[in-house]
Amino acid sequence: MTKTIRIDNLQYANWSEKIFRQMRDGGVHGVHVTIAYHENFRETVLNIEAWNRWFEQLPDLIFKGSTGDDVRLAQQTNRTAIFFGFQNPSPIEDDIGLIEICHSLGVRFMQLSYNNQSLLATGCYEAEDPGITRFGRQAILEMNRVGLVIDMSHSADRSTLDAIDMSTRPIAITHANPHWWHPALRNKSDEVISALTAKGGMLGFSLYPHHLKDGTNCTLESFCEMIAECASRYGAQNIGIGSDLCQDQPDSVVNWMRNGRWSKEMDFGEGSATAAGFPGMPEWFQNSGHFGNIENGLYATGLDDAQVAGIMGGNWLRFYDENFRPAT
Amino acid sequence: MTKTIRIDNLQYANWSEKIFRQMRDGGVHGVHVTIAYHENFRETVLNIEAWNRWFEQLPDLIFKGSTGDDVRLAQQTNRTAIFFGFQNPSPIEDDIGLIEICHSLGVRFMQLSYNNQSLLATGCYEAEDPGITRFGRQAILEMNRVGLVIDMSHSADRSTLDAIDMSTRPIAITHANPHWWHPALRNKSDEVISALTAKGGMLGFSLYPHHLKDGTNCTLESFCEMIAECASRYGAQNIGIGSDLCQDQPDSVVNWMRNGRWSKEMDFGEGSATAAGFPGMPEWFQNSGHFGNIENGLYATGLDDAQVAGIMGGNWLRFYDENFRPAT
Repeated sequence: MTKTIRIDNLQYANWSEKIFRQMRDGGVHGVHVTIAYHENFRETVLNIEAWNRWFEQLPDLIFKGSTGDDVRLAQQTNRTAIFFGFQNPSPIEDDIGLIEICHSLGVRFMQLSYNNQSLLATGCYEAEDPGITRFGRQAILEMNRVGLVIDMSHSADRSTLDAIDMSTRPIAITHANPHWWHPALRNKSDEVISALTAKGGMLGFSLYPHHLKDGTNCTLESFCEMIAECASRYGAQNIGIGSDLCQDQPDSVVNWMRNGRWSKEMDFGEGSATAAGFPGMPEWFQNSGHFGNIENGLYATGLDDAQVAGIMGGNWLRFYDENFRPAT
Repeated sequence: MTKTIRIDNLQYANWSEKIFRQMRDGGVHGVHVTIAYHENFRETVLNIEAWNRWFEQLPDLIFKGSTGDDVRLAQQTNRTAIFFGFQNPSPIEDDIGLIEICHSLGVRFMQLSYNNQSLLATGCYEAEDPGITRFGRQAILEMNRVGLVIDMSHSADRSTLDAIDMSTRPIAITHANPHWWHPALRNKSDEVISALTAKGGMLGFSLYPHHLKDGTNCTLESFCEMIAECASRYGAQNIGIGSDLCQDQPDSVVNWMRNGRWSKEMDFGEGSATAAGFPGMPEWFQNSGHFGNIENGLYATGLDDAQVAGIMGGNWLRFYDENFRPAT
């Protein structure tokens, strides 16, 4: 068993035994996996069924995680606990009661919007952001009650600031980087990250090339220096990894992520007509087996043991412990 | 807190705060409630949502039960743990993966058929019973794996004997009486009850008047003498209560139970055209507050303390402890 807890708080791979073995090779004890982009409730249940089959078939590698203690169990037994999340509120449809149902099924993170306007909040690609909606306010209350974490990774700024303000429990931006490091639309402003972390929220650093300075060619040094600067600005206890690893996915999947069933015209999201597919990952982070590279890179910046351990997983673990159970 | 654990292993009332208070008045610490007759999966989820609202609104009276320990917690805190069950496999539709999903949502009992032929087994009102189907055999394996108890209360005899034989874990007939006491179609033959209990299965005694000798006018003495005779024939450890209490339900509900969406012709089930509605309950068992009458009646037959405690709830509790968790 590796010394420190490692958690990757966002992946959406084309799951396979190979990938689960790489999680173990990388000493990754907890992974938050996306199980829905645009799926409705019934379709999401089918995705959970598919995960249940993985758990049944590969119990020596993975199991379903519900609480922080499951990450500890994974560390003790050399396995990986898998935590479910949604990148869009489509699985709850227009029904607030589905929030508790989804929590009962193991869902622990839900983005309030994904690029577009949702029933709850505005996505980061809309021209206007009117803020959290009437349903959104009710959903935030209910998510706080049952222990389903609000994720604003793909939401627009006003909605994000509203959610941080309205939520009585810390929220998360599971996979994004600071806009001051790489000014992508999906990366977050200093104002947003400051507000998030001031209330105990967590930022997970993304390794998706469109979120990286120099894209696929981003250096490990640049990525880790950015993290060290975030530790200095926002507190080393409020940051972690959310790699956004989309390993082995065909390009049809990025089309689904971007277009769902909402558009007949192709939307290229962070890509473009000439670079429509998944971009190549940096050579130092091709899969979960490469987590040690990040740990080494963080040490090289001068961060201390406790800071590195927190960023590699301890901070997410504390956040899981505090935010996955019903409010008391 | 009452001295002994009391469990009613089948109710389908028109739920209200009054009824939950009566459960407490009767010292009933666990109740298995029907949440689906003919509902498909999505409709069943709506029924669970409605239960979640009850749990949120009346936490001092009831909470959702998952394991036997929840019955003990209910006894310690003077509340009632509510366990979900289906009277028909309609909620799993044609999808074996929904068995684990339903278990995750708290479902602990599922009848393989309700009066009619289902995708899994034959109901007790069919003319022919070809036994457990291909899907039925797979569903039994999966129910055994995840810890969802097979209930054959409304199934036909061959299917029931098949299920007892195929299941690697004990099964239940949650609400029926012996045919030798009252020869109703829904009551069970000596052969079925003997086979059930020989494998550690449980029989829950019904107080639904159509299952009682002399119907609504059945005496407490007759009911309890029947139970004492069952204790002698089948073992006092394999029997309990499953009252089938349908308190405060309008007659439209018995029509739904009997006809679902499968018939345009009215089927009267155990009733008749001239007595189509819910029959009146015996005066000594009008609601959950009357559980003490049954306990007193059992003592009057000469059963000893341990036997009475087992029948009133201890036996179901042992069965819950052993059968609600995934197979090891």
